[in-house]
Amino acid sequence: MKPFRALAYARRHRPLFVAELKQFVRFPSVSNQPKHARDLRRCASWLANHLQRIGLEHVRIVPTSRHPIVYAAWQHAPRRPTLLIYGHYDVQPAEPLPEWRTPPFEPVVRNNNLYGRGACDDKGQLFTHVKALESYFKTNRALPLNVKCIFEGGEELGSSPGLESFVEGNKNALRADAVVMSDTRMLGPGRPALGYAQRGNVRFEIEVRGPEKDLHSGNFGGVVHNPLQALSEIMAGLHDSEGRVTIPGFYDHVREWSAKEREYMARNGPTDADILRDARVPMEWGEPGYTLYERTTIRPALTLNGITGGYQGAGVKTVIPARALAKISIRIVPDQTPNEIKQLLRQHIARVAPSTVTVRMRTLGASNPAVVNRNHPALRAAAFAYKKGFGARPVFLRSGGSVPAASIFQRQLGIPTVLMGFALPDDRVHAPNEKFHLPNFFRGIETSIWYLAAAAELGNARRKAAPQAVQDGLQERGQA
Amino acid sequence: MKPFRALAYARRHRPLFVAELKQFVRFPSVSNQPKHARDLRRCASWLANHLQRIGLEHVRIVPTSRHPIVYAAWQHAPRRPTLLIYGHYDVQPAEPLPEWRTPPFEPVVRNNNLYGRGACDDKGQLFTHVKALESYFKTNRALPLNVKCIFEGGEELGSSPGLESFVEGNKNALRADAVVMSDTRMLGPGRPALGYAQRGNVRFEIEVRGPEKDLHSGNFGGVVHNPLQALSEIMAGLHDSEGRVTIPGFYDHVREWSAKEREYMARNGPTDADILRDARVPMEWGEPGYTLYERTTIRPALTLNGITGGYQGAGVKTVIPARALAKISIRIVPDQTPNEIKQLLRQHIARVAPSTVTVRMRTLGASNPAVVNRNHPALRAAAFAYKKGFGARPVFLRSGGSVPAASIFQRQLGIPTVLMGFALPDDRVHAPNEKFHLPNFFRGIETSIWYLAAAAELGNARRKAAPQAVQDGLQERGQA
Repeated sequence: MKPFRALAYARRHRPLFVAELKQFVRFPSVSNQPKHARDLRRCASWLANHLQRIGLEHVRIVPTSRHPIVYAAWQHAPRRPTLLIYGHYDVQPAEPLPEWRTPPFEPVVRNNNLYGRGACDDKGQLFTHVKALESYFKTNRALPLNVKCIFEGGEELGSSPGLESFVEGNKNALRADAVVMSDTRMLGPGRPALGYAQRGNVRFEIEVRGPEKDLHSGNFGGVVHNPLQALSEIMAGLHDSEGRVTIPGFYDHVREWSAKEREYMARNGPTDADILRDARVPMEWGEPGYTLYERTTIRPALTLNGITGGYQGAGVKTVIPARALAKISIRIVPDQTPNEIKQLLRQHIARVAPSTVTVRMRTLGASNPAVVNRNHPALRAAAFAYKKGFGARPVFLRSGGSVPAASIFQRQLGIPTVLMGFALPDDRVHAPNEKFHLPNFFRGIETSIWYLAAAAELGNARRKAAPQAVQDGLQERGQA
Repeated sequence: MKPFRALAYARRHRPLFVAELKQFVRFPSVSNQPKHARDLRRCASWLANHLQRIGLEHVRIVPTSRHPIVYAAWQHAPRRPTLLIYGHYDVQPAEPLPEWRTPPFEPVVRNNNLYGRGACDDKGQLFTHVKALESYFKTNRALPLNVKCIFEGGEELGSSPGLESFVEGNKNALRADAVVMSDTRMLGPGRPALGYAQRGNVRFEIEVRGPEKDLHSGNFGGVVHNPLQALSEIMAGLHDSEGRVTIPGFYDHVREWSAKEREYMARNGPTDADILRDARVPMEWGEPGYTLYERTTIRPALTLNGITGGYQGAGVKTVIPARALAKISIRIVPDQTPNEIKQLLRQHIARVAPSTVTVRMRTLGASNPAVVNRNHPALRAAAFAYKKGFGARPVFLRSGGSVPAASIFQRQLGIPTVLMGFALPDDRVHAPNEKFHLPNFFRGIETSIWYLAAAAELGNARRKAAPQAVQDGLQERGQA
């Protein structure tokens, strides 16, 4: 099946596609804020109807313990391979709201960018595949291969337990040759990148309690250990002065990669200057002995995501707060595991927590790191599609972010995930004024059309290399 | 003028007085939240009308750069001394709201306590004097001495610049022999206390800025110095492991008191156990070598009042926040000065601030410490009134809190301030579920009635000792 008619259709319908994406972005589907639960259901329902309308079958809204999964399939190519398309319709919270130039859930186009929470992560990127499928259906009444779509509503919660139990409970029905998802970044406009490795992520909440009630700092300042101060002390103690994590044993299972792999990374990955420019900070920070690209990909990182404690309004309220709360996330790399990190942090906190206060730790979610061999045929097909869609061969990149879904698919289905990202480094994913670059939306759709065509050949490749390749990837270990 | 008819009047009208106090508490006169500016004006207007109605003259609502001062006087006792009655009608913020059993500005009586923000600090205590004046007016058509009332709306902002410029600009009109105010605590029910020393208070905001925008902790975790982490590091570094403040030079001008003074304090002040019980904490903390009473009165203290940074909602948002903010207050003692502390902190922050982030410090307000000689006649008259009102002689106590007004009156008018507090240690001043113990409200009114009678003799005392005594108090310095 030649993709040319599908490509022509996609080009003709660009304004319509943008209008539809705006509808999609309009749902405030913030998965970690309970007040938005209904918005997630409405968004899932809109998406399911949309998939039905463009020609997909078996459309279902599958409830999970949190937000529903939207499933759809088309399976009328019996001798062709099966591609699993994954994406997520949930989004990060939009706070801090005052920093948005236009309201986060009222998407607008400015300078060829669509602004809105989720415009890029992941509604816009998910939609590239939906529009690619539509383009085939409308022009060929068929797809070049079998497709199963899984669009979840809990990615920003770490994909678990919803996605994991859905995949675990439907292993046979979900059998496929590879997964493709678009939820990662390119190096820049016209510089596509294929993700082959992601860090895992373990998220914690640490609460310090002191006096039963807030106290007046005049009456009690100097004799009561302030929970907020104790929390600051614990948080400050998690790094040494050079930026290394101080939790004993933290680096014990961090894999050291071969000189060859690090050379490949240095040749193909972003430079220190690239990363500093993207972050818009004048100065680097962090673990000595590694490039910034290495620090964000093959090295773990602990980030303090938030502290809440005491008075937050205007002026000063002279209290000793009764409690203080910190949120932290730890990006882990092979061969660290969430359980090991959980235990090490728990032991460390128990050791450093002063007896003057009570410290409690809660784990809020966890995902494993994932690595795929760069030579896997599913990645080679993706490289071909990028060349067609963007006119440039992609580089193979590691990502500092976490793709829990990729580790779930690898663990449960034994198949690799192709991370065909269309986000730009300045798309402000997770931050105010998130945007999606519309030229990337259009090229993303065309890349997906080419990928569906190329992946139709995956069957042969799979028999030769797929499962083994995944294993290779995971075991590519240096001797340094 | 015998106070018996006034006392009888006060007893007969208790239910009415409570109803009036409830009206007063109902105004959300939160001085440090701009949205409440109108509520402060309404509250001032209500108070001014009330003063007019009970018989005071020269009632004025005096605008200041922030919230108005309510002034009133009665000056028809030409050969008698003049007493300045000070109080404040503004209140602390009510946050955190979910922790209130009943709404903070809908006062209710439970178990002989009036609950509401400001019920104790300072509307209830201020009102004891208003009701004492009313009791004289209604029964004698006159007061036993001349009275000037200053009720300000900026005490919780540190009384400056409003009160200070008002007093400075009206030195002659405000001439008086002593000030009385009720805004401090007793040792317990039936155990009155007279304040003779208070700590000063200097309040700061420290802001750390890093990247221009919040960043994704997956993409940038490990290479960007997190402003919230940097702030935690700075905050944690303000104390050593034993609870001493680490700012170089911080203790240089802290007065060491004589063994005699410390013995007096040990004999008359709260024990360590008392203070721990009031704070409801199981364990002490702080500077070694001093009792807890000493740590909260003759030793300075630095308190972290609040930190805001990063994501504060439910779950986790994996950001590196662009900025983080801390609010701190430093309680200072003789002979520390706000300016000196400001400079020392600024130098310290400049020294420890890492070059990876930008740190800014703002001073939000300051007040001086104040000390009055325990033998001053104005304090002796107060001791007599307490004995009459509460049936017990008061102990002379130092307070850990700050009474900026006392230091302003001392500096501008050269007169001592009598701190005749009616608050109980468990009144939860500045905290959720603030209350005022109604028996203390009633006894407070009677104590004020007795005090107005006793203070009518102050004129003689003043000629003998007053200004000198104030000086003595400030210069009472040990050799330790």
